[in-house]
Amino acid sequence: MDVETKLNQFREISEKISAYRLALTTLNWDSSTIAPKKGASYRNKMAALLSGELFSIETSPEFIALIDNLSAETLDDITTREVREIKKNLDKSRYIPKEVFIEYAQLTRDAENVWEAARDHEDYESFKPYLKKLIDMTKKVVSYRKDDRPVYEQLIDDFETGITIADYDVFFNKLKAEIVPFLHKIISKKIEQPAWLRQNVSIEQQRQVVEVLMEYLNYDKGSGYIGESAHPFSSHFSVHDNRVTVRYLEDMFTSSIFALIHEVGHATYNGQVDEAYQGRAIADSMTYGMHESQSRLYENMLGRSKAFWSSIYPKVQAIVNNLKDISLDDFILGVNHVELSLIRIEADELTYPLHIMIRYEIEQGLFNGTLDVEGLDKVWSDKYEEYLGIRPPHNGLGILQDIHWSGGAFGYFPTYALGSAYSAQWMSAMRKEIDVDQCLKNNDFKSVNDWLKNNVHRHGGVYQPNELLLSVTGEPFNPQYYIEYLKQKYSQLFEVSE
Amino acid sequence: MDVETKLNQFREISEKISAYRLALTTLNWDSSTIAPKKGASYRNKMAALLSGELFSIETSPEFIALIDNLSAETLDDITTREVREIKKNLDKSRYIPKEVFIEYAQLTRDAENVWEAARDHEDYESFKPYLKKLIDMTKKVVSYRKDDRPVYEQLIDDFETGITIADYDVFFNKLKAEIVPFLHKIISKKIEQPAWLRQNVSIEQQRQVVEVLMEYLNYDKGSGYIGESAHPFSSHFSVHDNRVTVRYLEDMFTSSIFALIHEVGHATYNGQVDEAYQGRAIADSMTYGMHESQSRLYENMLGRSKAFWSSIYPKVQAIVNNLKDISLDDFILGVNHVELSLIRIEADELTYPLHIMIRYEIEQGLFNGTLDVEGLDKVWSDKYEEYLGIRPPHNGLGILQDIHWSGGAFGYFPTYALGSAYSAQWMSAMRKEIDVDQCLKNNDFKSVNDWLKNNVHRHGGVYQPNELLLSVTGEPFNPQYYIEYLKQKYSQLFEVSE
Repeated sequence: MDVETKLNQFREISEKISAYRLALTTLNWDSSTIAPKKGASYRNKMAALLSGELFSIETSPEFIALIDNLSAETLDDITTREVREIKKNLDKSRYIPKEVFIEYAQLTRDAENVWEAARDHEDYESFKPYLKKLIDMTKKVVSYRKDDRPVYEQLIDDFETGITIADYDVFFNKLKAEIVPFLHKIISKKIEQPAWLRQNVSIEQQRQVVEVLMEYLNYDKGSGYIGESAHPFSSHFSVHDNRVTVRYLEDMFTSSIFALIHEVGHATYNGQVDEAYQGRAIADSMTYGMHESQSRLYENMLGRSKAFWSSIYPKVQAIVNNLKDISLDDFILGVNHVELSLIRIEADELTYPLHIMIRYEIEQGLFNGTLDVEGLDKVWSDKYEEYLGIRPPHNGLGILQDIHWSGGAFGYFPTYALGSAYSAQWMSAMRKEIDVDQCLKNNDFKSVNDWLKNNVHRHGGVYQPNELLLSVTGEPFNPQYYIEYLKQKYSQLFEVSE
Repeated sequence: MDVETKLNQFREISEKISAYRLALTTLNWDSSTIAPKKGASYRNKMAALLSGELFSIETSPEFIALIDNLSAETLDDITTREVREIKKNLDKSRYIPKEVFIEYAQLTRDAENVWEAARDHEDYESFKPYLKKLIDMTKKVVSYRKDDRPVYEQLIDDFETGITIADYDVFFNKLKAEIVPFLHKIISKKIEQPAWLRQNVSIEQQRQVVEVLMEYLNYDKGSGYIGESAHPFSSHFSVHDNRVTVRYLEDMFTSSIFALIHEVGHATYNGQVDEAYQGRAIADSMTYGMHESQSRLYENMLGRSKAFWSSIYPKVQAIVNNLKDISLDDFILGVNHVELSLIRIEADELTYPLHIMIRYEIEQGLFNGTLDVEGLDKVWSDKYEEYLGIRPPHNGLGILQDIHWSGGAFGYFPTYALGSAYSAQWMSAMRKEIDVDQCLKNNDFKSVNDWLKNNVHRHGGVYQPNELLLSVTGEPFNPQYYIEYLKQKYSQLFEVSE
């Protein structure tokens, strides 16, 4: 068989794989947004069966032989990288028995429903046996790989290629050393949270603000959709179909605003990938940290800046009565208010990495055997008390707040902090080439999208984060950008020394 | 291999088939409700690939051998019928090459998007080449069957097992002979359409009315959902997940009301099927006419009766300002107003079969070669002028109004008229056992649902319409019930002789 024939077979199977992925993405979107609860059990079972079908194709002797074979061929650079990425994932899954895979897929779907009910009833005990099963099944699934590294090390690598526990330890220690003392300077100023942040804003008004933001961000409804879900997320269907969800809380209207900007960051990334990569493994970012670097760049570095709001703030004031007498400067101070709080997704930019650190430590403990699901809610609460000086009044505001573990996503959380750090490095590079603040003030968000498209987004999953950072910013990942950004921004906002 | 082993294999493959069906149902629902337009082309291609995957399983040598084999075994009655139904469909599809099947699936998905744009632009010419392709592909797909009957005869049978062109000719001729003169008596009275029918009602108010109806009809949001789409439809995901869509027209608020009642009729049918049939070929009604008999029973025989509205009309009046001074009697006269009109889905109960007759005649002509897509819009308009004395001002109100042909559904339309006729026979049987009007007046819709569940719904697709009609009503299908129902109802409402 010549290379051309092999490549054609490869393309054909890749396209079939994409069809299953789109179906599963659609089923997941449906489940997380509008699907009726009573249909969940049957739907989950069917989705697990379909995941099993996809798994059979991805691990079929035909496809494995093709990938092993193509890995030894000389191909164009893009295809070489595409095949290498597939082979890397294949080496993780090729020895897993299909029934184990289906059992795992079924478990994560069921566990998500159990988690949601447990969170609503603030009842850790009902989720606990599922968390135990999820950890055991994750260990079991990983055990089939020909890889001797500790399980958590492998999980870390699944979400962020090339990163190790040692790397994260260094990163979090640096943050602890530099940011924690700085944070305490701000907290000691005892700045009160502005009252308007928690005043009720109707869902109807919030929807109108979301419309203003969509237009400003150039988020096109013709290739997107804004849904609602308990936990905001973005969903990549294809290059021309990238959807987001928000959650409307009447007593915290900024939640829907920043969730929207965050998720549109993800969606814009996927929407600006080179169309030629559609239906291929490189159509999406290679790592979670890379993806998060875009959503956090949108949400925090752009979305919480004065320049971002300068052209649209009057429109928002006209919609939200409560903001009528709040100046733009006060609005910016408010949306950057720093507080020791309980909920990760509502946390400010500065305390956010501490929320991640707690989850990182717990995950490490669960997988190296120093922690167990029994009493883990207490461990969670103790750590919040230790690091943030605040204890959850119930588990709904504690260990049950995040969806991730219920989906089997262990090792995912630390990519959030890493993504924030990447984004500071991108931002610094972008500022060298375009006057970002001036673009925002001119209501010209397109120029920002264009810079990100040309330098980051269009490459999809072709490059590893460190490769792309090096080629675009001139150096590999350097957390110093993040630390400097945080210190500079917050010292200016709250008049404290760096 | 013993029977037990064969049956286990059969169940396993059936379940897998159900997983693909659920995925395709979800993709279709998504496409017809919220999915962004620009993603349609890729989504359609992927959905067609997935349909091809399902087709491969349904026509795999393994499954064919199993079905042929089980057909010769002695099985329990339910499974015998299940296998027989699958074999009947298999005999239609087993000789179709997979690539032809995928091409057809892809064409129908693309054509739906083209149709939607064509309808919006009132442009038959842009849809015409697709209509031609759809007819040619339908003929091609049917040609692979080992069946010598004319193509349209086979299509008729696909949608309504056991019914022939000759049967429909008899049925429509009877309607023509008995109903057309009766209709003209009513039209000659020149009763004016009440003004409130076309007065604007806000979408928000319509949504509130829909909420009232959902509660009244016992349609549970825990196992359903109300979406929006250009053409209202219901979608069967599983026994505990049956969704409906409506379309809100500000200048015709009764449209969303009766679309909702109609679609909830379909949804209730699927939601009341014996749970043991879930994931099997018998989980859904065997024929389209049977399904339509339930939706039309809800929409017309119940939904347009005075008894139906007596307990909820005050609530509706409190929501819809325009109805404040309209008595219940006048409301009932209004929602049963008879008019020679252009749009099938907005047509009254009495003229409705004429709309169907036009489509039936055109479909017959397209497949027996006496009609061609060229100039078909004129043929359509001529027939409306001939039978209904009214000519569409443009094709958006003419040949482009229905979605069916764009999905390749030729032979579907006549089941609507047949379903209406079945429903009169069910209604007559139900009235012999429960006091339907009293139940409705008592706000006790559950008793109606229960009767239908016990006598019709729970059986799913186990029986053919004629079998079930015979066992429940004591006789096979008899159109006389329908004719008597129509004459009696409309002669009383508008004071004309039968």
